[in-house]
Amino acid sequence: MVVVGGGFGGISAVRELADAPVEVTLVDRRNFHLFQPLLYQVATGALSDDEIASPLRAMLSHQRNATVLLGDVQKLDLDARRITHVGSDGVADELAYDSLIVSAGAGHSYFGHDEWEAHAPGLKTLEDALNVRGHILGALELAEREPAARDRWLTFVVVGGGPTGVELAGQLGEITRETMPRDFRRIDTRHARIVLIEQTDMILASYGKRLSARAERDLARLGVQVHTQASVVDIQDGLVRIERDGRVEDLAAGTVLWAAGVSASPLARLLGEASGAEVDRAGRVSVAPDLTLPDHPEVFAIGDMVRVRDRAGKIKPLPGIAQPAIQEGGHAARTITARLKGAKPPGEFRYFDKGNLATIGRARAIADLRGVRFGGLPAWLIWLTVHIFFLNGMQNRIIVFMRWTASFVTYGRDARIIFRTSESPDR
Amino acid sequence: MVVVGGGFGGISAVRELADAPVEVTLVDRRNFHLFQPLLYQVATGALSDDEIASPLRAMLSHQRNATVLLGDVQKLDLDARRITHVGSDGVADELAYDSLIVSAGAGHSYFGHDEWEAHAPGLKTLEDALNVRGHILGALELAEREPAARDRWLTFVVVGGGPTGVELAGQLGEITRETMPRDFRRIDTRHARIVLIEQTDMILASYGKRLSARAERDLARLGVQVHTQASVVDIQDGLVRIERDGRVEDLAAGTVLWAAGVSASPLARLLGEASGAEVDRAGRVSVAPDLTLPDHPEVFAIGDMVRVRDRAGKIKPLPGIAQPAIQEGGHAARTITARLKGAKPPGEFRYFDKGNLATIGRARAIADLRGVRFGGLPAWLIWLTVHIFFLNGMQNRIIVFMRWTASFVTYGRDARIIFRTSESPDR
Repeated sequence: MVVVGGGFGGISAVRELADAPVEVTLVDRRNFHLFQPLLYQVATGALSDDEIASPLRAMLSHQRNATVLLGDVQKLDLDARRITHVGSDGVADELAYDSLIVSAGAGHSYFGHDEWEAHAPGLKTLEDALNVRGHILGALELAEREPAARDRWLTFVVVGGGPTGVELAGQLGEITRETMPRDFRRIDTRHARIVLIEQTDMILASYGKRLSARAERDLARLGVQVHTQASVVDIQDGLVRIERDGRVEDLAAGTVLWAAGVSASPLARLLGEASGAEVDRAGRVSVAPDLTLPDHPEVFAIGDMVRVRDRAGKIKPLPGIAQPAIQEGGHAARTITARLKGAKPPGEFRYFDKGNLATIGRARAIADLRGVRFGGLPAWLIWLTVHIFFLNGMQNRIIVFMRWTASFVTYGRDARIIFRTSESPDR
Repeated sequence: MVVVGGGFGGISAVRELADAPVEVTLVDRRNFHLFQPLLYQVATGALSDDEIASPLRAMLSHQRNATVLLGDVQKLDLDARRITHVGSDGVADELAYDSLIVSAGAGHSYFGHDEWEAHAPGLKTLEDALNVRGHILGALELAEREPAARDRWLTFVVVGGGPTGVELAGQLGEITRETMPRDFRRIDTRHARIVLIEQTDMILASYGKRLSARAERDLARLGVQVHTQASVVDIQDGLVRIERDGRVEDLAAGTVLWAAGVSASPLARLLGEASGAEVDRAGRVSVAPDLTLPDHPEVFAIGDMVRVRDRAGKIKPLPGIAQPAIQEGGHAARTITARLKGAKPPGEFRYFDKGNLATIGRARAIADLRGVRFGGLPAWLIWLTVHIFFLNGMQNRIIVFMRWTASFVTYGRDARIIFRTSESPDR
């Protein structure tokens, strides 16, 4: 059988199949599993790229029934039960399956304004994180160089008040208020303006009013201005136009970061076309309660690229975080194993909500653990423990723990390389 | 005063000036100091990029007389005592100096065959290291995918038998013989062919015959074939043509790595043109015994971009490693300080050769410490201690030590991300 995608969902499925009487081939276009929940820490210089990534081969080295292939899946032929994947040299190959689990995740969506991407990078891949890091640190460098454009380079706008946006804005507050002031001679980074823009009437809405207000206070303490009920009308180089209370306002910002929209992997649409399953505006394909596609009980789709229906056909609201994908991967794998053994498959997927955690800088976080909602240091300690625990690989855990401890004591950040990207003029 | 370049030479100069009655501005186009001696370890997945880089601002945070500016120096006006540097946004600015130290390093040279670069990447920058890593790990991935092209993807050619070439070849031996075998299902990476090509009659010539032979034996044990007196005639995609004993041989190699030629920063030529100093074929400018330029006692040039003359006008042979640059930076800074204080400047630069170390994989290295030459475990332990000690930043030291310890015990390598580069099709 074949699993497409080595993210949280795919890896969970492959591991659950370790003792099943089946050969599993995992196909991914990247050679590593990415711990996305800490991506914003790479983007803000707190962690290095390799430290939140684990080579897929190393993760599955000891699982003898698992083969890893590096390839970009471009075709899914559900009738012939065959996928086409392309190597980094452009050579295509086919792979037959009896069962298929597709877990290809999601990318950004600019809500029809793809031209904004060039000016407001998002945060989904490791390259995105290094790109965002270059934008943030590069803006401070330009502020130090150019007195005339100082205010613009010291203005940072984050679009989207979900967990990623809040965490990014909080980190920007920490960088400019705590890490950087001593490092510059001509500017005072503590005067940097950080604006978080949210379209609805509160940030982190899923945590409820009380925690949302707490997060807003924590952000304010780090110098972050939160604009709710504000929508982005236009983004150009160095400029964001927002609309609030019917008024249009222009923000001259050297750095604009996008944490607003999500768009499912193009494979979701391919699955929809091949099976007749519905595809929503965000490109997510609808799957049956047992995570399979219509008329194709051998094909499962899981994670951020799907919406799961209950038995009545209604969409279940599931958050776009790691836990649903992990649990869905396990569910799909157990269904396949049961079928192979002639046992009764588990049937409908039920999400067990272990809770939600978001951090807002140094010793501040909010937690919603099955309805028990709290913030501050206890939430932050739980956040820290959970993230270290779920990180893959003992080396990564030790290094990340060490970096966080050092950063807590010294306010420093050591992973501050600005990489040259294809955009840079001198490469 | 102004220092151009935050490598070993530049940083050494700035630090030596900490207590001098002078304001120092360090200009570099990158925002970090790179520990080049460990670049090959990033290229082979043993270390992560940020772990061998230190932010220049953090390094000089506490040195109150030092300012860091991120800029690409494009013009040097020695008569007006002014340099022009350009920011990442393309905006140029000028900087006046009373004294100037230029330490801009060197890049690759393909000996007039720049078209080879696309097929045989070199190893000078952090981006180079990630690019080389992608080539090496990507070749193994393609070998696993493509039975027909397996032999080609499992053939690695390293051009150049100096320290970088030897270290790269040794690491390739370790990766394919020790790290990877369990991670692949369809190929046996232990059958990979690794060829090291050297034009002269021995590798690591500066260590003498006995140690060179020892290094060759150590490499052979890791599966590396050493071809001496072999020169590269042509490099194309997937093919290296070499000439040995008058015979021409074609090697079908999926990966070719370049560790042969060095070419000084273009700033060396600008200095030569402005001062009348000689510039050699590798682009290095000749400096006086006190490291200054003709008729410009206020301008110093140091490191890999220069050749130093003795009082008789003869070129002193200095190795292209960190030590000469560090010592030259200190010498230039002390000369400037002495002048400012009206004291006698130190005069001629004298290189103190502390010794040379090269490693050839696990517990194997060779050392030449002021004529005392030895190899094996003792040399490796000295190599390890020296490199940890000279690395900048306590976090980096701890992390690198931890990664090496883990790798020594488990044979593993955790920094195995293949980054998408501008070459990759799907970015």
